[in-house]
Amino acid sequence: MTDEARLAKSASHKMATLDSGVKNKALEAIAKALKKESAKIFEANGEDLKNDCPDTLRKRLKFGEDKLKDVTDGIKSLINLPEPVGRTNLHTTLDDGLELYRVTCPIGVIGVIFESRPDALVQIASLCLKSGNAVLLKGGSEALNTNKALAEVIYNAGVKAGLPDGWLYLMTTREDVNEMLGLNSYIDLIIPRGSNEFVQYIMQHTSIPVLGHADGVCHTYINEFCDPQLALKVALDAKTQYVSVCNCTETIIVDRALESTLLQQLVIELAKANVKIYGDDYMADRFNCERVGNWHCEYLDYKVSIKIVDGIDEAIDHINTYGSGHTDAIITENKELAEKFMQSVDSASVMVNCSTRFADGFRYGFGAEVGISTSKIHARGPVGLEGLLSYKYRLIGHGDIVADYAQGRKQFKHISRSITE
Amino acid sequence: MTDEARLAKSASHKMATLDSGVKNKALEAIAKALKKESAKIFEANGEDLKNDCPDTLRKRLKFGEDKLKDVTDGIKSLINLPEPVGRTNLHTTLDDGLELYRVTCPIGVIGVIFESRPDALVQIASLCLKSGNAVLLKGGSEALNTNKALAEVIYNAGVKAGLPDGWLYLMTTREDVNEMLGLNSYIDLIIPRGSNEFVQYIMQHTSIPVLGHADGVCHTYINEFCDPQLALKVALDAKTQYVSVCNCTETIIVDRALESTLLQQLVIELAKANVKIYGDDYMADRFNCERVGNWHCEYLDYKVSIKIVDGIDEAIDHINTYGSGHTDAIITENKELAEKFMQSVDSASVMVNCSTRFADGFRYGFGAEVGISTSKIHARGPVGLEGLLSYKYRLIGHGDIVADYAQGRKQFKHISRSITE
Repeated sequence: MTDEARLAKSASHKMATLDSGVKNKALEAIAKALKKESAKIFEANGEDLKNDCPDTLRKRLKFGEDKLKDVTDGIKSLINLPEPVGRTNLHTTLDDGLELYRVTCPIGVIGVIFESRPDALVQIASLCLKSGNAVLLKGGSEALNTNKALAEVIYNAGVKAGLPDGWLYLMTTREDVNEMLGLNSYIDLIIPRGSNEFVQYIMQHTSIPVLGHADGVCHTYINEFCDPQLALKVALDAKTQYVSVCNCTETIIVDRALESTLLQQLVIELAKANVKIYGDDYMADRFNCERVGNWHCEYLDYKVSIKIVDGIDEAIDHINTYGSGHTDAIITENKELAEKFMQSVDSASVMVNCSTRFADGFRYGFGAEVGISTSKIHARGPVGLEGLLSYKYRLIGHGDIVADYAQGRKQFKHISRSITE
Repeated sequence: MTDEARLAKSASHKMATLDSGVKNKALEAIAKALKKESAKIFEANGEDLKNDCPDTLRKRLKFGEDKLKDVTDGIKSLINLPEPVGRTNLHTTLDDGLELYRVTCPIGVIGVIFESRPDALVQIASLCLKSGNAVLLKGGSEALNTNKALAEVIYNAGVKAGLPDGWLYLMTTREDVNEMLGLNSYIDLIIPRGSNEFVQYIMQHTSIPVLGHADGVCHTYINEFCDPQLALKVALDAKTQYVSVCNCTETIIVDRALESTLLQQLVIELAKANVKIYGDDYMADRFNCERVGNWHCEYLDYKVSIKIVDGIDEAIDHINTYGSGHTDAIITENKELAEKFMQSVDSASVMVNCSTRFADGFRYGFGAEVGISTSKIHARGPVGLEGLLSYKYRLIGHGDIVADYAQGRKQFKHISRSITE
């Protein structure tokens, strides 16, 4: 792994200097090659599908004509996006003839570990290419044959189109991943996707920065000043629209003022949708449901925690204490309370009167998503192309020296310039 | 420490909701209190100065009328800066009545460990306040009495002006710092300032994100197409203007084409400035200087490494291999080569025809600096207020549910809106 990572680092320096034309041509070549080599890819996918696996995994594992169309469409939309590297986002004249610019640049080498979805490999590789990063990839082992076929086609098409050797490398074993975690000097960022335990393992075993989230304990808080029908519709969607994902609601918080009205209806609706309720003492006594064991619990199932609170402050405290900083929503018609909730809840996405399930790079309009981050450092929330970029300062002078300023012969002007792109 | 950190976390949630008026009034109250209590602060500083210490440390330790004026002037300029929290930097209409905003917010709890300069305590505390963060501080032990006096005055004035209990806490022992490194759930970011060894120790002993730099191995590359007088002037400033800081040049790289012209003059000028030269084989043979032991060496002294290269590619490779990603400059009149250098050198600041010593938050016009970061994740280069901010997504709907989109009843519009602030 050290050799591959070193090569990726060296490739990353070349990737950073590629102009838009080269990158877009490479993306085009990759889309073409994927179509041309589709028979080989489908055959490899057939090998992977021979193994016994549950239906849900099978559905994600399957890479046929429709998924191929999805990923090549995705590549086309990436080609149409404006060049993300080299954009000036700050310009200050420090003094006559001494100009400071802050300019976007790639991060360098990104290590991505993703679930058993071969389409994810294509998405991640093309996002890294567009943003000028080199990439080390490791996909779920169930998709190994498909991933190998895809990586080979993508790598070769990229190199033929002018990308540097080593711009992409597919890791195939768990040992590769463990080795990668120690390669601080070559790898700039790790993006792990997968189960809570897996992401936590990665975070605890590397000093390389990690972008991602371990869990999604999302809340929907139904405030007393809500529209009850809207509240029921949104809470049900947030819990049941797709239960096995990080942005579905795991805890519903209800104001005590709604005890004898909305709360009853909510319990009935959840029961109809086959959702098992775990409650606080009040809920357990009144509805005879099981008590919540741990309020920081990500069920990823037809299960929900329900807590009764005496108003918004208790709701906010509960969310900031037991949540995971992922996504939390308030249902209310009171604008002041909505504003208070959005300011006080310390999460990547805060929502008013809509479903937590919207927290997603595609739904947010980012085109594609490399992951969702609950860190407050660097990119937060759903992360698209922007999260794969850093910036550098460029200072352009004409023989300027610091001694002139330190000894008072010159003074800084610090004139902020507007950015005209 | 756990109790103080927990209190800081709770304070941080309140700090995040304070409006501009409260924060600016608190800053004003702090500036006033510092002046009012100056006798007490100067007395404490007198205690610290009783200890035996070298002159350079003494100069940094001393906190008298002039430093007091500097820090209160600094607070006033912070008051005049626009409110950094709550700024919208992205607005997308996802669909009719479903509006997505990305809004700046504080990071939360920041732990800062800084050198024996009491004025740094005031700067950091006021930057954290303005950006809405709670802060845990630990200063150099030589300044303990001064820091205690300053922290008490600042904390009390802040609380009286409406800041929450626990918004600032002064750590006083090394054990406090070690304990802090393990408090992931309460502390969001650590900013260590100090020696290479110290910063590396912090980075290796915490899984909390760290913003900073371990070392500054900065380069000045003199290209054959340079103006020789400009090159000499800038290289001398970069090396000798102030040798004990991270942005001074440690290695000068010279094109072989300049062997018999500029190189000779450079050696003479460096000798005049009492700079000891370490060289590559060529330099050692020709000028009888010592050979460089380690090209990744931060002298922080009147010493310099000199390397002769066959053109820009070798210079760039050398910098990307042995540099620290801090600040590197090229001296050339050739614009294409300057552009190539700025694109290819993977450092926080890249410069053309000026001194690496300019890499600094004050000189860059950021008003104040919490540190310089060589990480490519989050803030990079000199870090001012912006580096203490994160953002969150706010999604405001009217009962919107994901099922409508998943089942094709509705389509996203994703209309990007211009930001009008």
